[in-house]
Amino acid sequence: MPSKTKIAVIGGGSWATAIVKMLCENMNEVGWYMRSHYIIEHIKLNKHNPNYISSAYFDPNKLFFSEDINQMIDYADYLIFAIPSAFVQAELNKIKVPLTNKVIFSAIKGIVPESGLIVGEHFNKKMNVPLENIGVITGPCHAEEVAMERLSYLTIACQDEKKAEVLAEKLASRYIKTKISDDIIGTEYAAMLKNIFAVAAGIAHGLGYGDNFQAVLMSNAIREMKRFIKKIHKMKRNINNSAYLGDLLVTGYSVFSRNRMFGNMIGKGYTVKSAMFEMSMVAEGYYATKSAYLINQKNKAEIPIIDAVYRILYENKDPKQEFNQLTDILD
Amino acid sequence: MPSKTKIAVIGGGSWATAIVKMLCENMNEVGWYMRSHYIIEHIKLNKHNPNYISSAYFDPNKLFFSEDINQMIDYADYLIFAIPSAFVQAELNKIKVPLTNKVIFSAIKGIVPESGLIVGEHFNKKMNVPLENIGVITGPCHAEEVAMERLSYLTIACQDEKKAEVLAEKLASRYIKTKISDDIIGTEYAAMLKNIFAVAAGIAHGLGYGDNFQAVLMSNAIREMKRFIKKIHKMKRNINNSAYLGDLLVTGYSVFSRNRMFGNMIGKGYTVKSAMFEMSMVAEGYYATKSAYLINQKNKAEIPIIDAVYRILYENKDPKQEFNQLTDILD
Repeated sequence: MPSKTKIAVIGGGSWATAIVKMLCENMNEVGWYMRSHYIIEHIKLNKHNPNYISSAYFDPNKLFFSEDINQMIDYADYLIFAIPSAFVQAELNKIKVPLTNKVIFSAIKGIVPESGLIVGEHFNKKMNVPLENIGVITGPCHAEEVAMERLSYLTIACQDEKKAEVLAEKLASRYIKTKISDDIIGTEYAAMLKNIFAVAAGIAHGLGYGDNFQAVLMSNAIREMKRFIKKIHKMKRNINNSAYLGDLLVTGYSVFSRNRMFGNMIGKGYTVKSAMFEMSMVAEGYYATKSAYLINQKNKAEIPIIDAVYRILYENKDPKQEFNQLTDILD
Repeated sequence: MPSKTKIAVIGGGSWATAIVKMLCENMNEVGWYMRSHYIIEHIKLNKHNPNYISSAYFDPNKLFFSEDINQMIDYADYLIFAIPSAFVQAELNKIKVPLTNKVIFSAIKGIVPESGLIVGEHFNKKMNVPLENIGVITGPCHAEEVAMERLSYLTIACQDEKKAEVLAEKLASRYIKTKISDDIIGTEYAAMLKNIFAVAAGIAHGLGYGDNFQAVLMSNAIREMKRFIKKIHKMKRNINNSAYLGDLLVTGYSVFSRNRMFGNMIGKGYTVKSAMFEMSMVAEGYYATKSAYLINQKNKAEIPIIDAVYRILYENKDPKQEFNQLTDILD
């Protein structure tokens, strides 16, 4: 069965493009849904995505394109969603065919704003996809380095480890190593929380804190991540594994991270609105901050970094003052 | 008593200079030993160390200088050693006065090559300093950022926590936060091991691995550090605290780290000898690698990163091949 499994990627951004590239290393055909007819035609003709990781080459003969999400759902057994979490509901609204017998993997690092749920939970609760058909693909992995074929490690999580294995095998190649996990809740929350900590790292940088403080911030962040996730889903997990700590580090230390860049502008004095406008893209960490804050109202884990970022982004508090207070809590 | 406690720093390098600066924020007089008469005269006259973090200002009236280590030992109650570990024995050979009633803090991140011991153990076993008089000062802290007065956190460890408190209080200022710990063994080994992992990070960079792999390497390194230290001294410690994980990150991610730079040259194909010659300075991680490897011959913790670095540095193995094998072990 797995050899004939049809896999489709939903999304046309850099991470979606990187995942299609990885799959093409092993598969003769990969489904690729994106909204833009123009981009599809461009890739067919020029063998590159013009907008994202445009150095990555694609063999159009291997790609089954569609700009109709229902056609793509019909086509595929496994669907990998790799679009910003803020656009998930809009795509789901278009769906007219059942998703219940499909395996859905989320490569999205965020919360669906309409429901306040992580993507896996959203598919389960809003689209009736059974939990054992839901999985997560997580890094540490910048799409840009996939394009350059630099060695990267992915963790593929699913309650049904056999499904994780199917996908892990299709994604692995000479430059991608894959590992499976059964911690879908933990890995997905980790992927979401790391974006908030990347915003925090950016704010700190924007305020003029240096590398010494950055290391303290990250060391506190991983402990905060552990406390947060433990309250939501208690299980034996090593928070220092690549899917948690590695993913935090690759984002927190990357100058290319959108979340870090967004935080940096906030630290330098931009308002949230003008920082978003200036970047002309969505910083997942912005939405994640509100969701994590709200979730934690009930759970009451000790999360001083997320609390500070929340007050800065949503209560218009002064970043300098908030971080000044935060530095007394961190250790 | 503490208010009259006399503290002296042994060493003239960047970290010694940074510690003197921190102490001067709180004390009216700080002892400062270094070998070079010329540098002492320069600081007295120009109020800056000409060679290291030379932007840091010193008030000569606050400094009690000596180029005679015995005079400095006579003077001080607390001695902070901040010289490369390779030079420790040479300095100790000069000592003619007893050290037994002195409190010795090590700000050295390494192993004394002559004994294969971490500095605290060396003072205990070779100089008969009682264990309760021995402590460790550890980061994450680049001296350069202390010079710039950027917020930094130090951990001061001593079995006798009162002694740690005395020093913690003298080092804390508006830009330095201090924390005490009773884990002298763990913090000192962490400070030493992180240099090996920084060499590994440098080798990886030199070989062309990217940020994705770097995050995986660091995530494996902290787990390796935990296993290594646990075999030496089992106690309840959170390896994600700043003194362990933070210290690893500030070194592993710093492009200014000597150890990372040394590793980078090895990865790019320099021999050990030519890399050392080119840098004209000591990379602590070089000596630490051999010591850690030898210590682990008995303890048998699983330390694939250190083993690989050892084979590259001491058995002339090909970095490319060694890292290729290592990437299969990491996860």
